[in-house]
Amino acid sequence: MTISLDEALALDAVDPLRKCRARFRLPSGIIYLDGNSLGPLPVATAQQITQTVEHHWGGDLIASWNKHDWIGASQRLGAKLAPLIGARPDEVLVCDSTSVNLFKLLAAALSARPGRSKILSQTGNFPTDLYIAQGLASLAGATLKTVDADAILAALGDDSAVLMLTDIDYRSGARHDMARFTSAAHRAGALAVWDLSHSAGAIAVDLNAAGADLAVGCGYKYLNGGPGAPGYLFVAEALQPALASPLSGWFGHADPFAFDPAYCPAEGIARFQAGTPSIIAMAALEAGLATFDGVSMGAIEAKSRGLSQAFIALVEQRCPGLTLASPRDPSARGSHVVFAHADGYALMQALIARGVIGDFRAPDLIRFGFAPLYNGFADVWRAVDILAEIVETRAWDQPRFRERSRVT
Amino acid sequence: MTISLDEALALDAVDPLRKCRARFRLPSGIIYLDGNSLGPLPVATAQQITQTVEHHWGGDLIASWNKHDWIGASQRLGAKLAPLIGARPDEVLVCDSTSVNLFKLLAAALSARPGRSKILSQTGNFPTDLYIAQGLASLAGATLKTVDADAILAALGDDSAVLMLTDIDYRSGARHDMARFTSAAHRAGALAVWDLSHSAGAIAVDLNAAGADLAVGCGYKYLNGGPGAPGYLFVAEALQPALASPLSGWFGHADPFAFDPAYCPAEGIARFQAGTPSIIAMAALEAGLATFDGVSMGAIEAKSRGLSQAFIALVEQRCPGLTLASPRDPSARGSHVVFAHADGYALMQALIARGVIGDFRAPDLIRFGFAPLYNGFADVWRAVDILAEIVETRAWDQPRFRERSRVT
Repeated sequence: MTISLDEALALDAVDPLRKCRARFRLPSGIIYLDGNSLGPLPVATAQQITQTVEHHWGGDLIASWNKHDWIGASQRLGAKLAPLIGARPDEVLVCDSTSVNLFKLLAAALSARPGRSKILSQTGNFPTDLYIAQGLASLAGATLKTVDADAILAALGDDSAVLMLTDIDYRSGARHDMARFTSAAHRAGALAVWDLSHSAGAIAVDLNAAGADLAVGCGYKYLNGGPGAPGYLFVAEALQPALASPLSGWFGHADPFAFDPAYCPAEGIARFQAGTPSIIAMAALEAGLATFDGVSMGAIEAKSRGLSQAFIALVEQRCPGLTLASPRDPSARGSHVVFAHADGYALMQALIARGVIGDFRAPDLIRFGFAPLYNGFADVWRAVDILAEIVETRAWDQPRFRERSRVT
Repeated sequence: MTISLDEALALDAVDPLRKCRARFRLPSGIIYLDGNSLGPLPVATAQQITQTVEHHWGGDLIASWNKHDWIGASQRLGAKLAPLIGARPDEVLVCDSTSVNLFKLLAAALSARPGRSKILSQTGNFPTDLYIAQGLASLAGATLKTVDADAILAALGDDSAVLMLTDIDYRSGARHDMARFTSAAHRAGALAVWDLSHSAGAIAVDLNAAGADLAVGCGYKYLNGGPGAPGYLFVAEALQPALASPLSGWFGHADPFAFDPAYCPAEGIARFQAGTPSIIAMAALEAGLATFDGVSMGAIEAKSRGLSQAFIALVEQRCPGLTLASPRDPSARGSHVVFAHADGYALMQALIARGVIGDFRAPDLIRFGFAPLYNGFADVWRAVDILAEIVETRAWDQPRFRERSRVT
């Protein structure tokens, strides 16, 4: 069932998250549906960075490690992020990149399951996750096995050390049942690692309710931490004492400033730190996390579903030639939606030229992310209105829209 | 031979690097001799970050990956850093932390020397480097062996895969002969990895002249990139095709945006990237690297020696009870100097309270770094003048100066 523009405006008027839009500096004239790739600039970020750079670094120099708690940044930001993903404050650490964090946790899981050498994953998993598993497998004498989604449970066996999955597929948006896969991994004697990059901040993730062991995620998508923001990792409290990071740098040492020649891991989540984190990047991510202040993740997920359902209904009504390539059931989906179109690349470029920012994923998918903090129902209506006109007039069918750039 | 304040001022007046001091925003009333731990804020940094955050991220959002060459940041900054360390532009990459980069290169070196499982290092090497080697060794079935400096050459053997050394000792400032140790490693069939964290930017490092294979370093000390700035890595051009990073994330893929499920390393230095780098942290480091514009590393090293020699002479003349714990020969030393004092911790706190910022390293070392870009001869004279008064009056002998903080 589709909505009219008036109905969309009425939904926005009663949206409990409406106040959050003012927390972002969205450029005028665009509808930004790519927060699943790079969240927009929060209003508070510039000030947060200025304070860190000019007042703390510039004014207090090296003393800032104590005076402004730079030393505790990874744990402080982890504690702020924890409620967004159903974790306890001492189970989350913000540090390094998602890829580096995934390497740490996969390696820790392999070491915790001696005699088992298999990392099991899904064939269509996020490529960089597969790459990291390949690199680790080659170094540690393990193997990566990938199977289709419907074959994962049957592939878990007594050689499985760790199951590595992404809760929301980066292309289709399909959602895995985290509790079901995690408990299946446990029954097989394996651990499970989840990549939350395409879920956290846009839908309700509840790691502890799902009995999750380990997770990683990205700071620059729905968490609005800025380009290449630090990633994060989650280690369930009960597992922390038994697991060790192979990237055993000084920030994970029990007493980093003792300069002891032997590595001794810190207690708790701090042991998963490696080297010194960028404090400036941390400041930007701290402002990104603050865009969630006072927001319930239930409200986030409810709005996400409303936006994506409205989008699908409108596209299917008004844009012939586009085929839904995401699950139709919103409970089986994350906060982005993809449609297939034979000339998807050019179509997306034409949309971007008209101010509707989504992205393209090969071979033929156009992808739209709905960020409940700043996207509204009228955005959805207007985006589809522009898309429908482009489809109807074949405005995408121009050489300038077919030219590929390095980053798509 | 010591200098007077007038002589110090005269030396500053003819210093060819004098113009560089204006490139930094040094707080008034302090003499900052801790640039070997955290470089001060460059004047240009705030503007560089503002451009990246407000104009690029805020204004152009995801399009900035192409439009503002975010995608090339690691290589672009690597090329800017290369001349400071005697490397070619395509041999250096700025990314991740020093610790993570060291892990990559040690692992790559181990894989390139099958049948050899030993990482050889020095007993007193920088602790986080030893920690990283311990973590890697445990994961990859290798061993870390550490020996005293004078036993390194004899310990190289046909089981040595890689020699890991720091060219300037983080405590004593003692300098290793990079060419000599590298060629000894080669004769034994091993590769060598150098950590340049305590040298690059303060003395003349010439990796290619030394025949170096691999190196890593830190962006936040003498390179002035800000707290926790990205680190860097160097891989000699001839070695690049044969080496692979175990942290094989998508940024090191030959075609990251093809989203191919199989990892295929990029050509050249780009293959040593892992995940997405923080573009904001990169912007700050880019401003840090620009503080070296138009400066010869020969002039840097000459001034470094002049400053540290003047400091040693003045301390030895005016501060009884302090014992030089760095090599006396400036060619055997980097750009920092340590003195031992039984109450070194309290003495350093008293100095800091008087505006002379150095740092303390257990058990009894007070450490002073001389950054040729912004420290001058008058700084040295005045720092010793304050130190001499504190020593003479025992001003350090107070409970408030004995209280330990987390970061020292």
